[in-house]
Amino acid sequence: MAKINIAVDAMGGDNAPAAAVSGSIAALDGREGFTVTLVGREYSIHNELVRMKQGSDHLKTGRLVIRHASEVISTGEIPTTAIKEKKNSSMVVALRLVKEGTAQAVVSAGSTGALLTGGLLVIGRIKGILRPALGVMVPTVGGFGYTLLIDAGANMDCRPAYLAQFARLGAVYMESLFNNPFPRIGLVNVGAETEKGNQLVKETFPILEKSGLNFTGNLESRDLALDGADVAVCDGFVGNILLKHTEGMAKALFSSIKKELKKGIVTKAGAILSRKAFTNIKTSFDASEVGGAPFLGLSGLVVKAHGNAGKRAVMNAILKSVTYVENDAQARLMKYFAEHDGEFKE
Amino acid sequence: MAKINIAVDAMGGDNAPAAAVSGSIAALDGREGFTVTLVGREYSIHNELVRMKQGSDHLKTGRLVIRHASEVISTGEIPTTAIKEKKNSSMVVALRLVKEGTAQAVVSAGSTGALLTGGLLVIGRIKGILRPALGVMVPTVGGFGYTLLIDAGANMDCRPAYLAQFARLGAVYMESLFNNPFPRIGLVNVGAETEKGNQLVKETFPILEKSGLNFTGNLESRDLALDGADVAVCDGFVGNILLKHTEGMAKALFSSIKKELKKGIVTKAGAILSRKAFTNIKTSFDASEVGGAPFLGLSGLVVKAHGNAGKRAVMNAILKSVTYVENDAQARLMKYFAEHDGEFKE
Repeated sequence: MAKINIAVDAMGGDNAPAAAVSGSIAALDGREGFTVTLVGREYSIHNELVRMKQGSDHLKTGRLVIRHASEVISTGEIPTTAIKEKKNSSMVVALRLVKEGTAQAVVSAGSTGALLTGGLLVIGRIKGILRPALGVMVPTVGGFGYTLLIDAGANMDCRPAYLAQFARLGAVYMESLFNNPFPRIGLVNVGAETEKGNQLVKETFPILEKSGLNFTGNLESRDLALDGADVAVCDGFVGNILLKHTEGMAKALFSSIKKELKKGIVTKAGAILSRKAFTNIKTSFDASEVGGAPFLGLSGLVVKAHGNAGKRAVMNAILKSVTYVENDAQARLMKYFAEHDGEFKE
Repeated sequence: MAKINIAVDAMGGDNAPAAAVSGSIAALDGREGFTVTLVGREYSIHNELVRMKQGSDHLKTGRLVIRHASEVISTGEIPTTAIKEKKNSSMVVALRLVKEGTAQAVVSAGSTGALLTGGLLVIGRIKGILRPALGVMVPTVGGFGYTLLIDAGANMDCRPAYLAQFARLGAVYMESLFNNPFPRIGLVNVGAETEKGNQLVKETFPILEKSGLNFTGNLESRDLALDGADVAVCDGFVGNILLKHTEGMAKALFSSIKKELKKGIVTKAGAILSRKAFTNIKTSFDASEVGGAPFLGLSGLVVKAHGNAGKRAVMNAILKSVTYVENDAQARLMKYFAEHDGEFKE
């Protein structure tokens, strides 16, 4: 097994550098078999390690390496400009480590736009990939507890061939993460029947049928949160709308519950007694807990952690990346698209 | 004020004819100023009235009229065939009452496909309307408690001009129902910023800006359930996906809550004490309670009640239709599109 090294952008996100630093340490403490390169302002990272009183063991053994990068890309910046001009930003340097082969994956809680652009410009696509896509784990009731929604927002206007590729990217990702050789692939649609949907999904359906994947047909959006598939394929506009609606619905429901529970003495008492249950559910429906959204289809794994990711989320994102690399998912994707080059037309 | 008569398809839906009959009586009991024509098999309707021991007063005063129709369109039938061949079905006869001017609105819990097709074929569009659209009230936290999502599934592939018309149809509907002269119109999108979205919404944005409506810009789907707008405009594919995801999310969340609450003795006690609160929330998030989805843009109001609509839902659908007719919403729509004919291009 080749060495596994994960590059972590220490300066991205609302909780930088604390979340990246503590998340990296937690991941290194959690399991063996990989190293982390923390990329960012050396003094900030060191100060954080000193403050935490942790990490010196990992620095000594070489499992933790600090790579200085003087600049920071902030969320307000125009992605293309930021990536092109800030060559010494923590994000660009981290991406470059993957490009050079020094790292196999990047984890960043920085600007989504910059990370997607940077992934494309610095790392580049797998040969044969038309459009890389963002996958997001959405919480479900039942099954593995999560469905990978892909594309969750990288490509607003799509063609059938893109969706067919998203299905393959998602399948290999879920396969490697859950050790499930035949993840169920669903095509997000308004109904289960074959003839349903808009032009895009109608044209995508027969391509997926012939794909050799475990295509289970149309996934009615009603079943997305109910474990209707392991991979839910859609264009990035629909995916992002679904993702944000999931957040909004959870927020709306919990806020109604809170309001209702405050209404009477009896329900108030009920609320106090059931507090722990609510905390558990809230946590399981909180996307930030899942640990990052993989940007798939590049010549290396790029994982976007939530902007407000904390230690736990960064740790999860790192550990998932390690599993992905360990299971050779990237190599399988490259092999597949090399063998099927020309099959997917714009 | 002209006479208001609502045609109710007595034979449509899972609970026919009981729900239609009892819902009609409840609506007539609830307020004055309108009549109901129950359309369907005369003996079935009569038997139901006898069983209920109600309605004889309304039959005597002429507020309730029974119109015999021998055939029934069931949910499995191909819409176009059913509408064309079953001229004596309760649905077609009810639609014909609107076409002839004997009724101003139809309420049916029958097959959605047949009702949309029937509305188009039997009643026909308002002059100038490119595509009629299905509006659905989705529950929100705050505001009026509902946002009209339009199109919720009638048109899978849309053009900017269709969406611009949906906005107008939705605005007039909400205006008439909530007596709110300036309903907030939001364009369903992946972000609030102007430049966000797919080609369709990007092209629709400037049309809505010039529309004279109270266009409040892009409505991030996160805010749909949080009272982000009074009318949420989108194509029918996205709308239907959002609608069904709303149902799925509510189901998933309630099922997790139930599971969590059963875990320990303390939370179990909490569950019992807070039972009433949950029932309230479940009801408020249950679309079937809202009372029907208006199919807008036809030369008469067609309201689709949920397939499993009960008495309360049918009653609500009838009363909403009465309000719509009373407030001359239909006439305002016809006037607007007559004056702006040619402005909306395919």
